Amino acid sequence: MSENENSKKPYVTYGDRCCGCPGSTLPISGCRFTLAPMTDRYVEIITEAVAKVDTSKVWKNTDHLSTVYRGKQIHVVDAVKACFVHAYREGVHMTMEATFTKGCPGDCDADCFMAEDDIRMNEEQIRDIHFPVACKIALYPMGTDSYMKEIAHVVNRAVDLNLYDCSTHYATYLYGDVQDLFNYFDEVTRYCGEKISHYILEATLSVNSPTPRQ
Amino acid sequence: MSENENSKKPYVTYGDRCCGCPGSTLPISGCRFTLAPMTDRYVEIITEAVAKVDTSKVWKNTDHLSTVYRGKQIHVVDAVKACFVHAYREGVHMTMEATFTKGCPGDCDADCFMAEDDIRMNEEQIRDIHFPVACKIALYPMGTDSYMKEIAHVVNRAVDLNLYDCSTHYATYLYGDVQDLFNYFDEVTRYCGEKISHYILEATLSVNSPTPRQ
Repeated sequence: MSENENSKKPYVTYGDRCCGCPGSTLPISGCRFTLAPMTDRYVEIITEAVAKVDTSKVWKNTDHLSTVYRGKQIHVVDAVKACFVHAYREGVHMTMEATFTKGCPGDCDADCFMAEDDIRMNEEQIRDIHFPVACKIALYPMGTDSYMKEIAHVVNRAVDLNLYDCSTHYATYLYGDVQDLFNYFDEVTRYCGEKISHYILEATLSVNSPTPRQ
Repeated sequence: MSENENSKKPYVTYGDRCCGCPGSTLPISGCRFTLAPMTDRYVEIITEAVAKVDTSKVWKNTDHLSTVYRGKQIHVVDAVKACFVHAYREGVHMTMEATFTKGCPGDCDADCFMAEDDIRMNEEQIRDIHFPVACKIALYPMGTDSYMKEIAHVVNRAVDLNLYDCSTHYATYLYGDVQDLFNYFDEVTRYCGEKISHYILEATLSVNSPTPRQ
């Protein structure tokens, strides 16, 4: 056996789990996100924002690529919103790539706080902060043939809320105030968490882009 | 009817299309990506990189949020790789969020160039450029119950190629040279495009992070 093969990591296996059988028995929602402030001061902006979030009701981890929060849906969205708002700087272009999800057959009952009430820890500090956000979203309802109907339902809620901008290849574009956008994320992740066994809502948020919307 | 309702955009509808019935009759692959160089010079880096890519074999569009390429799988990956490599600057932390995909029931036969040979337009200019990349990926095979097996297969190819770093909540972490990583993306998108009616490979690439890998 070559040295190369000796050092190879073991294969992963996810067993025979399939959709409809989440790997966790608890209703764990999660979000993994990457902040990218496009300025020389990005380190201070990211570290300050991550530190300012009250994470007492979510499990969290930050590494070289991203931050993940896990717990009850309402607290995960509250914490992600707080991190994004705390990282906002007037005039600084920034993106946040965020994956909201629940129900993966490969999930487990670890790394989460679930026995919490519904009082959001960050909302009071951030609810009066307003700035416009451009955003692209894509919803992936897993393990079903008729997922386009679920996607249309979720997109049309954005139409109802005047957040819908346009449809384009591989994404739906939204535009609106940060408060309205996160209210929408809160509603959609609650809806999908109840209706869809395993969903992924992939979002890229952008503020202060020098490129005008088309 | 209130003014608000008058100005509301029309609802989207994706009809009764379901998985296994791609909206396009052509085998159109695509990638939508967002570059984020974390430096005050981000505008020049992004615009220069986008302009330097030879896009003669892909359909393209850039807007305030992202760039999209559509066409034959080999040329889409070639163009995305070129844009990433051209945006690389020594010492500058940068992320690229990229959605590689094919087969969406909502797709259509527009906005692509397909009648092309397999000679890559950018490879020769970029194939000798090397730098390490940290990356997280998530594969979403749509419309099937047994998607965890396809995910395991694709992750285990990264193990074979010594690109696999670790598994974590909602993502698989990779680490390796930019050439090896894009060879992997080329192989995986070809495999998924042939085996899975509708797939999404979501990736976030990161270079020059000041945070060490754990």
